[in-house]
Amino acid sequence: MSDIKKAVLAYSGGLDTSVILKWLQDTYQCEVVTFTADLGQGEELEPAREKAKKFGVSEIYIDDLREEFVRDFVFPMFRANTVYEGEYLLGTSIARPLIAKRLIEIANETQADAISHGATGKGNDQVRFELGAYALNPNIKIIAPWREWDLLSREKLLSYAEKHGIPVEMKHKQGGSPYSMDANLLHISYEGRHLEDPAAEAEEDMWRWTVSPEKAPDAAEYLDLEFRNGDIVALNGKTMKAHEILAELNRLGGKHGVGRLDLVENRYVGMKSRGCYETPGGTIILKAHRAIESITLDREVAHLKDDLMPRYASLIYNGYWWSPERLALQTLIDHTQATVNGWVRVKLYKGNVIVVGRDSKTDSLFDSTIATFEDDKGAYDQKDAGGFIKLNALRMRIAANLHNRKK
Amino acid sequence: MSDIKKAVLAYSGGLDTSVILKWLQDTYQCEVVTFTADLGQGEELEPAREKAKKFGVSEIYIDDLREEFVRDFVFPMFRANTVYEGEYLLGTSIARPLIAKRLIEIANETQADAISHGATGKGNDQVRFELGAYALNPNIKIIAPWREWDLLSREKLLSYAEKHGIPVEMKHKQGGSPYSMDANLLHISYEGRHLEDPAAEAEEDMWRWTVSPEKAPDAAEYLDLEFRNGDIVALNGKTMKAHEILAELNRLGGKHGVGRLDLVENRYVGMKSRGCYETPGGTIILKAHRAIESITLDREVAHLKDDLMPRYASLIYNGYWWSPERLALQTLIDHTQATVNGWVRVKLYKGNVIVVGRDSKTDSLFDSTIATFEDDKGAYDQKDAGGFIKLNALRMRIAANLHNRKK
Amino acid sequence: MSDIKKAVLAYSGGLDTSVILKWLQDTYQCEVVTFTADLGQGEELEPAREKAKKFGVSEIYIDDLREEFVRDFVFPMFRANTVYEGEYLLGTSIARPLIAKRLIEIANETQADAISHGATGKGNDQVRFELGAYALNPNIKIIAPWREWDLLSREKLLSYAEKHGIPVEMKHKQGGSPYSMDANLLHISYEGRHLEDPAAEAEEDMWRWTVSPEKAPDAAEYLDLEFRNGDIVALNGKTMKAHEILAELNRLGGKHGVGRLDLVENRYVGMKSRGCYETPGGTIILKAHRAIESITLDREVAHLKDDLMPRYASLIYNGYWWSPERLALQTLIDHTQATVNGWVRVKLYKGNVIVVGRDSKTDSLFDSTIATFEDDKGAYDQKDAGGFIKLNALRMRIAANLHNRKK
Amino acid sequence: MSDIKKAVLAYSGGLDTSVILKWLQDTYQCEVVTFTADLGQGEELEPAREKAKKFGVSEIYIDDLREEFVRDFVFPMFRANTVYEGEYLLGTSIARPLIAKRLIEIANETQADAISHGATGKGNDQVRFELGAYALNPNIKIIAPWREWDLLSREKLLSYAEKHGIPVEMKHKQGGSPYSMDANLLHISYEGRHLEDPAAEAEEDMWRWTVSPEKAPDAAEYLDLEFRNGDIVALNGKTMKAHEILAELNRLGGKHGVGRLDLVENRYVGMKSRGCYETPGGTIILKAHRAIESITLDREVAHLKDDLMPRYASLIYNGYWWSPERLALQTLIDHTQATVNGWVRVKLYKGNVIVVGRDSKTDSLFDSTIATFEDDKGAYDQKDAGGFIKLNALRMRIAANLHNRKK
Repeated sequence: MSDIKKAVLAYSGGLDTSVILKWLQDTYQCEVVTFTADLGQGEELEPAREKAKKFGVSEIYIDDLREEFVRDFVFPMFRANTVYEGEYLLGTSIARPLIAKRLIEIANETQADAISHGATGKGNDQVRFELGAYALNPNIKIIAPWREWDLLSREKLLSYAEKHGIPVEMKHKQGGSPYSMDANLLHISYEGRHLEDPAAEAEEDMWRWTVSPEKAPDAAEYLDLEFRNGDIVALNGKTMKAHEILAELNRLGGKHGVGRLDLVENRYVGMKSRGCYETPGGTIILKAHRAIESITLDREVAHLKDDLMPRYASLIYNGYWWSPERLALQTLIDHTQATVNGWVRVKLYKGNVIVVGRDSKTDSLFDSTIATFEDDKGAYDQKDAGGFIKLNALRMRIAANLHNRKK
Repeated sequence: MSDIKKAVLAYSGGLDTSVILKWLQDTYQCEVVTFTADLGQGEELEPAREKAKKFGVSEIYIDDLREEFVRDFVFPMFRANTVYEGEYLLGTSIARPLIAKRLIEIANETQADAISHGATGKGNDQVRFELGAYALNPNIKIIAPWREWDLLSREKLLSYAEKHGIPVEMKHKQGGSPYSMDANLLHISYEGRHLEDPAAEAEEDMWRWTVSPEKAPDAAEYLDLEFRNGDIVALNGKTMKAHEILAELNRLGGKHGVGRLDLVENRYVGMKSRGCYETPGGTIILKAHRAIESITLDREVAHLKDDLMPRYASLIYNGYWWSPERLALQTLIDHTQATVNGWVRVKLYKGNVIVVGRDSKTDSLFDSTIATFEDDKGAYDQKDAGGFIKLNALRMRIAANLHNRKK
Repeated sequence: MSDIKKAVLAYSGGLDTSVILKWLQDTYQCEVVTFTADLGQGEELEPAREKAKKFGVSEIYIDDLREEFVRDFVFPMFRANTVYEGEYLLGTSIARPLIAKRLIEIANETQADAISHGATGKGNDQVRFELGAYALNPNIKIIAPWREWDLLSREKLLSYAEKHGIPVEMKHKQGGSPYSMDANLLHISYEGRHLEDPAAEAEEDMWRWTVSPEKAPDAAEYLDLEFRNGDIVALNGKTMKAHEILAELNRLGGKHGVGRLDLVENRYVGMKSRGCYETPGGTIILKAHRAIESITLDREVAHLKDDLMPRYASLIYNGYWWSPERLALQTLIDHTQATVNGWVRVKLYKGNVIVVGRDSKTDSLFDSTIATFEDDKGAYDQKDAGGFIKLNALRMRIAANLHNRKK
Repeated sequence: MSDIKKAVLAYSGGLDTSVILKWLQDTYQCEVVTFTADLGQGEELEPAREKAKKFGVSEIYIDDLREEFVRDFVFPMFRANTVYEGEYLLGTSIARPLIAKRLIEIANETQADAISHGATGKGNDQVRFELGAYALNPNIKIIAPWREWDLLSREKLLSYAEKHGIPVEMKHKQGGSPYSMDANLLHISYEGRHLEDPAAEAEEDMWRWTVSPEKAPDAAEYLDLEFRNGDIVALNGKTMKAHEILAELNRLGGKHGVGRLDLVENRYVGMKSRGCYETPGGTIILKAHRAIESITLDREVAHLKDDLMPRYASLIYNGYWWSPERLALQTLIDHTQATVNGWVRVKLYKGNVIVVGRDSKTDSLFDSTIATFEDDKGAYDQKDAGGFIKLNALRMRIAANLHNRKK
């Protein structure tokens, strides 16, 4: 263990990573660089600086990554209408590769030979951090304290903290929530405790970002979303940056009770786990993006994307953002978005996101002269359908004839 | 045209198929057998008998197919969590193969050499009827009047009707709805007119099966759904037949504003078309089925199903229910449902279907002793994760090393 | 029919298209532009000019498309290791989109409003020509005489030819072969007659491009193939253009009896058909391309390509080269080829193409320090495998435990 | 380590597993049960009994698994036309799940609490053995000595052997081959040494089962293969059991130089590795099975199988034979084989397997009356193709029109 000189720690300022900070210094006798990222989780980050200083840390990184996060990670993911296991919008998964990237960049800048993180050995996040780190720096050393130390119960952790003068009031930092939580601009998640029984309904006071549908306003609210190349670029006519749009959609969705999710998912490490999520803005984006694609994307291209989506979602969920296969799929996905331009109108009301209109001045493939039930003036020859059906049926007719002969 | 002796007509009793009935008799000089199916569309069928008799039809079939429809078509489809283009629950598509099957059965019984239907040459339904019919009887003749005749405008149709004494008040049969509609136990659909502009919001008074979320009750309602082999077999503790369950879920969903959908879809014949759908019961089933699978299905089996689902959905949408490839996929899908047993609790509230609990006494793969954030007493060795990550990263590390050497 | 002013005909100079030329002039009373392409089929093209002139054609196109064909169609296809139905290298399919493109270009240049071709109504080629043409010019008119006229038997065709002074000796142009044949730089194909019985062995004297393995030289021959970005750029150290390489590989493969294929394939129009093919150069390229990818492509990227390949192959077979979904897939495929650089050595011997070596100075991911059976000096920690296996097994162990409890 | 009472060892009788036997006894102080399987590898197995006895083993299993191996593992795999990475016929992979199954069965019979094997920590076989074992007995303990001990070089192993009186002449048992080899009825494989340089050609005297194409007979040999439900049941008219057929095909293929393969493959543990394989019988089966399917399988079913095949192949390669997803896929695959009945004639000649005919009295979907180039007497209406093409082109025409308007 003595061969590690300097480690970059993904540091939230909370109890767990504070214990890790101290534990790294003691166990590895190494210098620690702290890295705290603003991904829009809605917490003060400056306290993390003070805490790090108290532990004698001299290289402290506190980075505002919100724009990069939404522009280069969240939006590209939504271009694929990405959903894991039919439900989950990958709010935690998509933030990890950015953190991995910054950990490696900071390791390079500070000539650190290791990185460290506070993810447990049971979860997906360790995989996401480490696969990303290895892909970006194959020789980096990785310290995952939860897989190494013996502080596996909360009591042991607290006693270690007290013994080493780590402020235990930190544990109340998250308002005393009994849940294991993660938050960034895309979502907030809850796991553990009460939720470990998948039969039990989540408690109403667990939810933090959204009001319940019951408490949402009685009046619906309409939003106009403008898309360019598959990304939302303007909201109600106002052009904004990616992270500004997501923040505003979170606010609006949260207000209307949009984006709660309660599910049991399959972790990459092999177990099922129950999680609750609030993804108000993302829920709106997904609906709206499908709607704009519905008029601007060719059928077979849309179906190709749908066929590939679960695989792409699994790659992100499993931590393969920085893999060559994710990049290959992204190349295809991004290529398809060149025509995904136009606007979508959605209505928010008590938990519902309802698409009520969509159009594209430049790229609509909806051709009302053909689709009409009225006289189309020859745009489409109904007689063509006879031949279309006949040839599509041919192989089945041959088989049925054989079948009849066999009887 | 004179070589057709007898044709079985899919007959609703409405204006269009009444005109077709007469037109067939006149044009083909053939006997017509009428077939009217009760698929739960919620209309009186006996008037169809009277009308058919008026046209001199002597072989009249009016069949209650509701149980077969839900048990053998709707439920098998939901076992795959089937959704077309991310949204559409295939309410129209799934009814067509059953109608095709009955048309062929009746043709065999009545020694008819042809079948006929009222689907237009622009839509998917002609394809679904005819592919099904050809697959089941390769030598059947098919008459699709909309592709043959010149009554392509409403005026011409009405004038033909008046000329031949076909009661035109029929046109008000559907309450004078200006939409092209289709209904069965799974859904009701709307197309045409106002909806032909995808930018325009659907009018509130178009919807028939569901109240608007705004008008739904202020109190939520909880449902307990029991699954056996992937199908719902009991509702709130009461065992019911497939079609009874769907009818009851429609009632409950409709009451709570559940299951409205407004989308632009890609037809098999090549055009985009805007449709609105109400699928209250189906919307509940889809959510609940995913939830019961989430605890009873192996991860990789679930992902395999997710990967195949869009293909399976397209097969049904495109009319290939009776194809060998649909059957092959169904074999796989049904095989996976042996362990899909247990219950799901959902909450209906103003358009929302919220899963709040799920469990299985016999088949839950959720293992709280492993997933727990608390001490798991050795059920899972966190150190295993290190090797798991290292080997999964190996190929990317080798590539990154090569990349570094190249620089 | 009178509304067509000028039609561009894909004209081989042979009997069939000469009859079509005349038939177009007579039936449509339109001007005809002839287009004859050199795709490396190995025939004199100038006679086509003389014949066209005899029919009074004034706009005659004879284009050498060999380089474009191999560079922009054949090579991109082989980047995907494309094989239809496990066997067929798509020699005919891949030439059609280029012909379609030139037909449309010439129609634009000559202000023609229609194109015409000699493909029958039973085959795939009509589909490939016409889908391509429609995709490139949605308003083009297409005349497919075989679907229109009544010259459906050889006798009728000959009698028409004689009646209109079309030299019937043309029918012996292909050496009197009784087969329906197609040739270009990638392959020559045979269909019809004797081959219509799939139980019957093809006759030895049918084959034209390859000697039989039995007659091939007794001495093997080694080839060194150099790849850049997935394409062969040099043969035995000599840099050549795409079409020159393919021609030389055809010569070498043909000499060694490489590339014969006898199969029953599924046509897009719904029937099975028996075909024999000679693809000597393509057979070598496929083997060599897989070999260079085996050391330069990431595992998961290679598997992604393998998963998508059958779909890509079907797109080409079915005539969707100019579709947006083929383009989207090509974008992914081409993206993956950036690292496919290096060389492959193959041995040709009596029908066999045997890969005997492969390497890449710049892009080999083969790392002998890790793969070695000898001491790897710590490059790979075998203990990691334990954790890798344990976590990959976890879901199956949980299921087995449940299974045991149920018993 | 002291908690293991009895371990079942997969014992070949060779040096490595003999060292393991002794090492297990010494290290774990446990009883050892030996299990030696006859999978058709062509070696005397009785010597293994003598050796085991010498080490004091009292429970010795020597099982002839040849029929089960081919009938229940090899043949089901070939029903899917299974090939890994375009080339590899999975000869090693498919034997491992059977060995895993027997290890667990024997552990149950002998009340052993552990199993052990001689696979290294770098390869795929450890994964295949252990995933299989865990799936069949989730609580089994697994000892993988190569991942535990320090005998990682050949010298250390030999010195351990000499020290413990293990006959070192065993090392010459495989004729002194310098390669790491594996053999069973499906194939023999070679890895290591000279082959670790992928640029170097394999040496001719490495190959053991096949003559070189150069030394194969100058006269071709024809075989008639009869299929029932996708499996070969008779060879040249003689009905045989599965393993007898494979043995005979190996003899015939080997005689004619059929089935050599030299490739670089991607291991599940993350590295590329070079291997050479001889699979004479399997190479013939693959070709013949595709041929019988070509006339008896529906197009879309065949394409579905082709789309799923790479996934199925990876499952087997990666060791997931006993997983629920492999079983789900097998259910689909087996379902499709009900009509795969008939015969195929192949010609073997100097390394070539050439399909020269195929037919099925009961299940041929090849309909010469439709496919014919001659007059089909109305079996197929060529005019249908026009409508077929028009509707398939519609979406591309709409897009092209939009594209033109934009210009």
